[in-house]
Amino acid sequence: MAPTVVRIDQASPNGRLLDASRPIIDIEDEGYTRGDGVFETMLAVDGSVRKFPRHLSRLDHSARLLQLWNPGQDAWRAAVDLALGSAPEGTDTTLGREHTVKTLLSRGTPEEGAYGLVIVTPVPATTIEQRTTGVKAMLLPRGHDPAEDSDLPWLLSGAKTLSYAVNMAVLRYVKSLGAQEAIFTAADRRILEGATSSVIMARRTRSGVKIYTPEPNHGILPGTTQGAIFAGARDAGWDVGFGPLYPTDLMEADGLWLASSVRLLAPVTHLNRQGLITDGDLTEELMEFLKSH
Amino acid sequence: MAPTVVRIDQASPNGRLLDASRPIIDIEDEGYTRGDGVFETMLAVDGSVRKFPRHLSRLDHSARLLQLWNPGQDAWRAAVDLALGSAPEGTDTTLGREHTVKTLLSRGTPEEGAYGLVIVTPVPATTIEQRTTGVKAMLLPRGHDPAEDSDLPWLLSGAKTLSYAVNMAVLRYVKSLGAQEAIFTAADRRILEGATSSVIMARRTRSGVKIYTPEPNHGILPGTTQGAIFAGARDAGWDVGFGPLYPTDLMEADGLWLASSVRLLAPVTHLNRQGLITDGDLTEELMEFLKSH
Repeated sequence: MAPTVVRIDQASPNGRLLDASRPIIDIEDEGYTRGDGVFETMLAVDGSVRKFPRHLSRLDHSARLLQLWNPGQDAWRAAVDLALGSAPEGTDTTLGREHTVKTLLSRGTPEEGAYGLVIVTPVPATTIEQRTTGVKAMLLPRGHDPAEDSDLPWLLSGAKTLSYAVNMAVLRYVKSLGAQEAIFTAADRRILEGATSSVIMARRTRSGVKIYTPEPNHGILPGTTQGAIFAGARDAGWDVGFGPLYPTDLMEADGLWLASSVRLLAPVTHLNRQGLITDGDLTEELMEFLKSH
Repeated sequence: MAPTVVRIDQASPNGRLLDASRPIIDIEDEGYTRGDGVFETMLAVDGSVRKFPRHLSRLDHSARLLQLWNPGQDAWRAAVDLALGSAPEGTDTTLGREHTVKTLLSRGTPEEGAYGLVIVTPVPATTIEQRTTGVKAMLLPRGHDPAEDSDLPWLLSGAKTLSYAVNMAVLRYVKSLGAQEAIFTAADRRILEGATSSVIMARRTRSGVKIYTPEPNHGILPGTTQGAIFAGARDAGWDVGFGPLYPTDLMEADGLWLASSVRLLAPVTHLNRQGLITDGDLTEELMEFLKSH
């Protein structure tokens, strides 16, 4: 079934429904011909978008880096309401009815200019499964250190753009090795991030549990899910740490997860084919932090 | 006016015309949502594509790096013939009637899979003007050395993908400085390539003219136009050199050009706002090499 799509542009500042069962993108759209646009992928539960302000804020940051028109938060909220209100029922899970909500800004055609889209689909069952079955991950060198690019604005470091071919190639590569996810490492073996997720690690100490994520260095996309979990953990009085983390840390962890907005927290069951400790109770505790932020 | 578009897929292996005056790309097309595809941009003069084998070969290389379906050379030739035969007359220039011919492979939708497009438009007048008026260029740091990524296949180094947001950002950046083009430099100031072109430099010596291009290092996209010019120059007995080149070399050159398939050779009139020597005779000689290859 086709997704539910709402378009925002100068003529429809609060969005209008499109019929996405037929093609809706122009051949000269620079989002298509040049990957020239930005996006966010969010989760809606029972019609309510999780972490909406965090996503709107990151979308705004991406748009500014690309000097893209942005219709603003009110327009996005109205368009997302319209899309969710028009979409078929979401996937039924223990959390409620779940939809994936994608917001996207494209440079558009030279003639018509930039526009926004809201694209709503029920969350795929395979995504929901990974919350409990977990994923196998491989460590992969990221090549250059992304921090090298972080003070050169024309390299769009920190923008979540439609130019995602490398992320897709990375996922194909790890699939060919029997895994579902990649965790990037820098030249000094430091842990960076997943191909489309953030890394969260737990260590049990005498006084409780401490959770870690790689230092929010320039060049790592700040994870909205990781951010929400850490905010919740802090409120609950947990100790949190910010790397640097190395492969050994991950191998010896008392819990390792890949955090992203729709899949939420996927426990990593294997890293480079080695079995890891998984801890269902810890996963549930982190999930609770997420609900409150 | 809309471009002339021919689509190649399993159902139409030699291509069929699409009506591109209305949208033809699906919202779930991964060429659009993920920049997951590859392309080539070529020049046709009087209905005949320049350097067709070089482009088909580079497209094939790009497709293999992305593990994308490729319909093969015969299909591309048939589809390009169909598109050029159906297109309105090309732009009238001293070379003949000129069209831009773009070939593109997209991952397509998960349902329908990959497909190819041929997209034909008359060459814009502004592009043709730059062959004679030249361009102003700025040196811009490339951040990391692209060679760092060249032995990691999942980083798609050397593939010409639809994920072109950074190249577009670079062109916006130099335009804000009053220039039209960027020339990337490595951390050691070595000259790499233009944002969408190759760098060619000439030096007059006692025995004639020697032309240079930065060493075809891993991580620099091999330029088809630069390749054709150098092949022609060698046949004519010219001396050719392959870097390393540094900013001083470019500043003191007896001619500097940005080579690309449609604009051909744009003389660089200013580099970082400093006026450079331009030499119309040399430009014409290099253009002759191009015609023969």
